[in-house]
Amino acid sequence: MTAALLDSLRQTVGAAHVLTEGDLSAWEQDWRRRQRGRALAVVRPGSTAEVAAVVRACAAAGTSLVPQGGNTGLSVGSSPDASGTQVVLSLTRLNRVRALDPANLTLTVEAGCILQTVQQTAAEAGLLFPLSLAAEGSCTIGGNLATNAGGTQVVRYGNARELCLGLEVVTARGEVWDGLSGLRKDNTGYDLRNLLIGSEGTLGIITAATLKLFARPAAQLTAWAAVPSMQAAVQLLALAHRHLGAGLTGFEVMNQFSLSLVARHMPQLRAPFAGLEGAPWCVLLENSDNESEEHARSRFEHLMELAFEEGCVLDAVVAGSIAQARELWHVRESIPLAQAEEGLNIKHDISVAASRIPDFIAHTDAVLAREVPGARLVTFGHLGDGNLHYNVQAPEGGDAAAFLREQEPRVNQLVYDAVATHGGSFSAEHGVGTLKTAELQRYESPVALGLMRAIKQALDPQGLLNPGCVLENR
Amino acid sequence: MTAALLDSLRQTVGAAHVLTEGDLSAWEQDWRRRQRGRALAVVRPGSTAEVAAVVRACAAAGTSLVPQGGNTGLSVGSSPDASGTQVVLSLTRLNRVRALDPANLTLTVEAGCILQTVQQTAAEAGLLFPLSLAAEGSCTIGGNLATNAGGTQVVRYGNARELCLGLEVVTARGEVWDGLSGLRKDNTGYDLRNLLIGSEGTLGIITAATLKLFARPAAQLTAWAAVPSMQAAVQLLALAHRHLGAGLTGFEVMNQFSLSLVARHMPQLRAPFAGLEGAPWCVLLENSDNESEEHARSRFEHLMELAFEEGCVLDAVVAGSIAQARELWHVRESIPLAQAEEGLNIKHDISVAASRIPDFIAHTDAVLAREVPGARLVTFGHLGDGNLHYNVQAPEGGDAAAFLREQEPRVNQLVYDAVATHGGSFSAEHGVGTLKTAELQRYESPVALGLMRAIKQALDPQGLLNPGCVLENR
Repeated sequence: MTAALLDSLRQTVGAAHVLTEGDLSAWEQDWRRRQRGRALAVVRPGSTAEVAAVVRACAAAGTSLVPQGGNTGLSVGSSPDASGTQVVLSLTRLNRVRALDPANLTLTVEAGCILQTVQQTAAEAGLLFPLSLAAEGSCTIGGNLATNAGGTQVVRYGNARELCLGLEVVTARGEVWDGLSGLRKDNTGYDLRNLLIGSEGTLGIITAATLKLFARPAAQLTAWAAVPSMQAAVQLLALAHRHLGAGLTGFEVMNQFSLSLVARHMPQLRAPFAGLEGAPWCVLLENSDNESEEHARSRFEHLMELAFEEGCVLDAVVAGSIAQARELWHVRESIPLAQAEEGLNIKHDISVAASRIPDFIAHTDAVLAREVPGARLVTFGHLGDGNLHYNVQAPEGGDAAAFLREQEPRVNQLVYDAVATHGGSFSAEHGVGTLKTAELQRYESPVALGLMRAIKQALDPQGLLNPGCVLENR
Repeated sequence: MTAALLDSLRQTVGAAHVLTEGDLSAWEQDWRRRQRGRALAVVRPGSTAEVAAVVRACAAAGTSLVPQGGNTGLSVGSSPDASGTQVVLSLTRLNRVRALDPANLTLTVEAGCILQTVQQTAAEAGLLFPLSLAAEGSCTIGGNLATNAGGTQVVRYGNARELCLGLEVVTARGEVWDGLSGLRKDNTGYDLRNLLIGSEGTLGIITAATLKLFARPAAQLTAWAAVPSMQAAVQLLALAHRHLGAGLTGFEVMNQFSLSLVARHMPQLRAPFAGLEGAPWCVLLENSDNESEEHARSRFEHLMELAFEEGCVLDAVVAGSIAQARELWHVRESIPLAQAEEGLNIKHDISVAASRIPDFIAHTDAVLAREVPGARLVTFGHLGDGNLHYNVQAPEGGDAAAFLREQEPRVNQLVYDAVATHGGSFSAEHGVGTLKTAELQRYESPVALGLMRAIKQALDPQGLLNPGCVLENR
């Protein structure tokens, strides 16, 4: 049976693209090295028609499929389980740019296109594709859409979901739905596009997408502010919305401990106001301006004057040049690496309404100080979206591996319970994958879970698309 | 059986809110007076719990339900059929503002809130809820979301879908899903919110929503330009995107015939460049500025200079005051009324990628000139979204009623076939309702229809929620 399936797959995509031997760790191991699976085969179709044929062959054999893009996800949603019975369906050979339509501000690409390629294709046409995240050099747009990726410009442009106008999808039956539309308004039936986006390969396989592009701003500038409290940071956010409007394309917050890790492990980087007394938090703001760098700067200076007057900023610098603006971003983006240099840690990707973040932080910091003495909090993230990476570093000088082994489930539950109490989400941008299915069961409402299960059953009655991802196998 | 159901409904919501006698035309007749139905009863629950109880009672009796908001839809999706067996579930008593959260830029309202009330509630807090459309004084936010309403500011803010962060929904089983989230990032499972939005009451009943608010711009100004061709209008759109960025909150196009109807029937209104030789189209642009009216004006003047240089504008005026800006909008908004004064006509609400609109217009105008001699085209709409109201007026002096009777189906098919050829949508913002189910069958892909039917079956297995709307009864 297995041999017959492999033969059929080889006939469909060519023997060179059905991998069963050698080192398959690039496909079998997840990005964060949480779980190592074993695939029956890694299949690399070269076209949408081949994807559909692979799905039909697997469906006929009752073999389940794990769709995979760049395999950079953080929730173990694109690598196979340990059974050795699953086919990894790699989309990376579907990497053509199909169409660029500048007058419609749209770009149609195949699922396997690297995010950076998509950004560059837009840039070469003088346009902007604003999705931007750490893995952009290796993640694929198909994976970005399947997981509804977030990143750094969500405060202005939304998640991957908001940047997509149409999809091409292979269904669980191996049919092709051509929903590649460049329309901004289309009210003809149910919203299949958004149902597929964020479904992590469990309802269908995204093979291509039509993406929204934007005019490139004339200048992107940053400012960096030291604030006296999280409440003040939230107040600054409201001021920035009012005075920059859609110019506000980034609003990142960092606690002083996260900046001290950057200072310790990357001494060549200089974070303004690191360690400044009375300023437990720093904020990085980005202003994208349609006019000029000078205009961006004068708007920032005006905003900071108002912020001083209102008392929500203790000190601030506006980048003196585009190069300096990039340096400030570089400090912010170095936090995860500095944290890794410091040692193992427990990561969270949570969101809470911006208005409730000060309470959430005060409450949860106190809970952890009481329940996990010595734990060090590396709190940073996209405050503009209410999304924090509320990470927990092992106590100074302790055995980090032992800390994780002993404390991770408990710390997760303390944090996620606090998130739930504050009306938040345990997975803001990384998705559920196979890593957080228990959390979904615990924190999602039974009514919503019932609807999700009914949809899964309706669109994938055999349960062959990425089983055990998002919803637990039952 | 019927008597028992009515008794149960009276016990649930109070006898005063179960209407079975007298003039029920406000609930039984659709807005455009296309179809008059007959209801078993009009039921007006006062809370989400009562909505759920009504649904359970109807499900137990096997009685179908037609959810209704302001009953202002244009596709006959919220009024009962002629059978006299359906319950109209009116949501208008669920009209509380539940929560305003300025720091999170969110507003939670019940489904029956009038759109204008929602706008005003935001405005009183110094904020903006940007959904805006002709029926805003009587339509409800629940209906706006159920139909994914569009309107005039979609080019910047998106449709109703993009303005909603969370929903409360009563399912077909009469359960309540509390998905009222103010989160901007939440990747925990399937996107039930967007599946419900635009499903026109066929998958669940929206009882409340958390909406996105925005900072109010400091000034909204308009400009009016005469352009030499539709191609030039599309070129102007690209220029406006580049130089105004997110300031561009409106981009409307009107042909000279539509302006001549305004001049004929509302002689007190003055449209700039009406009848200008060599200018078949006029464009209304809106710029929403975070700084000041002066800044908005100088940006517009800069844009128009560039447009003259590029040759895509023949003449232009920038509003000299906010009052004049409103007057220009008033001209644009008077077109539907002027058209009604001129007599009966065939309406279309279509969308095509902006880049393909010039070809679409040239092609379709020629087809209609050949196939329907004398027909007069009232073409106007939201070019910024690729959405045109491509309306067909009866020949001058002819019998308009006879024209509609004889020509409407044929004209619809000619227009919709042309739309399909150009990759467009036969219903950009008005939805499918019961009026356009045949078009959905004809123009939607069989694969997509199969997925939609599977979803309907999964979420409403008894088929009791607004049957015959969106998908045909089978």
